[in-house]
Amino acid sequence: MENLAEAKRPQIAMLLYDGATTLDFVGPHQAWSMFADVFLVSKDGNPITTDSAMVVHATHSFATCPESLDVFFVPGGMATFDLMLDTETIDFVRSRGENANYVTSVCNGAIVLGAAGLLDGYRAATHWATYEMLKLTGTVEPAADRVVIDRNRLTGGGVTAGLDFGLTVLSQLLGEQVAKNAQLILEYNPAPPFNAGHPSVADDETISQVKAFLGDMNDHGMEQARQVQKRRALAA
Amino acid sequence: MENLAEAKRPQIAMLLYDGATTLDFVGPHQAWSMFADVFLVSKDGNPITTDSAMVVHATHSFATCPESLDVFFVPGGMATFDLMLDTETIDFVRSRGENANYVTSVCNGAIVLGAAGLLDGYRAATHWATYEMLKLTGTVEPAADRVVIDRNRLTGGGVTAGLDFGLTVLSQLLGEQVAKNAQLILEYNPAPPFNAGHPSVADDETISQVKAFLGDMNDHGMEQARQVQKRRALAA
Repeated sequence: MENLAEAKRPQIAMLLYDGATTLDFVGPHQAWSMFADVFLVSKDGNPITTDSAMVVHATHSFATCPESLDVFFVPGGMATFDLMLDTETIDFVRSRGENANYVTSVCNGAIVLGAAGLLDGYRAATHWATYEMLKLTGTVEPAADRVVIDRNRLTGGGVTAGLDFGLTVLSQLLGEQVAKNAQLILEYNPAPPFNAGHPSVADDETISQVKAFLGDMNDHGMEQARQVQKRRALAA
Repeated sequence: MENLAEAKRPQIAMLLYDGATTLDFVGPHQAWSMFADVFLVSKDGNPITTDSAMVVHATHSFATCPESLDVFFVPGGMATFDLMLDTETIDFVRSRGENANYVTSVCNGAIVLGAAGLLDGYRAATHWATYEMLKLTGTVEPAADRVVIDRNRLTGGGVTAGLDFGLTVLSQLLGEQVAKNAQLILEYNPAPPFNAGHPSVADDETISQVKAFLGDMNDHGMEQARQVQKRRALAA
């Protein structure tokens, strides 16, 4: 890690907003903050309340966030469903995304990138419950992979995929050795107590209970995504 | 999840302090907050700054934290090295731990439990770099397992072990089905990009670089743990 201290620290901005899923941004943040300058950016620079009711401070506002970034990142959460239609946020995402070396997301943060037109023509990962929603936001191809690298778009799957994603981004930015060092420091040697982490492996009862739980919220997300689709068609 | 809504929500308190590792508490918090009332407790109830420089609000102070809890939790971080010798914190940890149904930690939060005498005669997990440190805090047996259940002590290994730990605690509190539902919602189907998450699997170069990086800080931790050992011997 010694030569690392001499390397330029990458500049990374993470979008924060009320209702963001805490773990979506904390997973990558924990890995990145050891080796990069990480900005937490909310619209007005005020603290945000996450979906798990945790209040987290921003370090920057849209106005003070540097324009040129090594990595621009968007976390997910149910709040993205309405965030996709917030013009000020989408304009900010588009402007920072267009100027960043890497455009990235975890979970259904991908639908925000999609709504900003940043995933047109790309493959992208998103939370398993939002593959159809992501399709509506543009000409993007949703992928069930844990992490998708398509040119300079690096996207992770749902919530905990942010760990695999965060290390992958570190590896791209600073090399495999730095990413492996981070993995050892974070003791990322996972051993989930059950095999239920994706519909491709979970049992039917678990899938059915979770789909019922997410149902109405995802219906709302699909409605909002159709609005995005209409807006983008009108603007084209 | 329907019958769950009717079940009593468990009451969980998580200790917060300056320098706590963000992911240590956010991992379990994300899983627990869907199904439990989770209190974030700092000494004075003020916001804390984590080891990744994230500012997070507390919901309670030591004074306002309920006395009787289903789960009492301590996260880790380098700041535990000095925290072990902070009498006010250790007294609080002991009082809430003695009255909780489950006494828990992630990462080297275990050494804080140890310093409070809550792990005497128990097996416990901790971050791989702190097995020797944990031994000094009392008559505890450090284990290299990802999650250790010894009677009502549930402890997780380093940082990311908080995900496996958090689901395990949910399973104990509310049953396996709830934990599997949480796992699917959080898409916890890990695929680390490298095999470097523990000294038992990492390559020699990675182990050597990380040990060099942690060296001085862990020396300080060992010193402080020896102070704890002395204090506990004098008090006995």
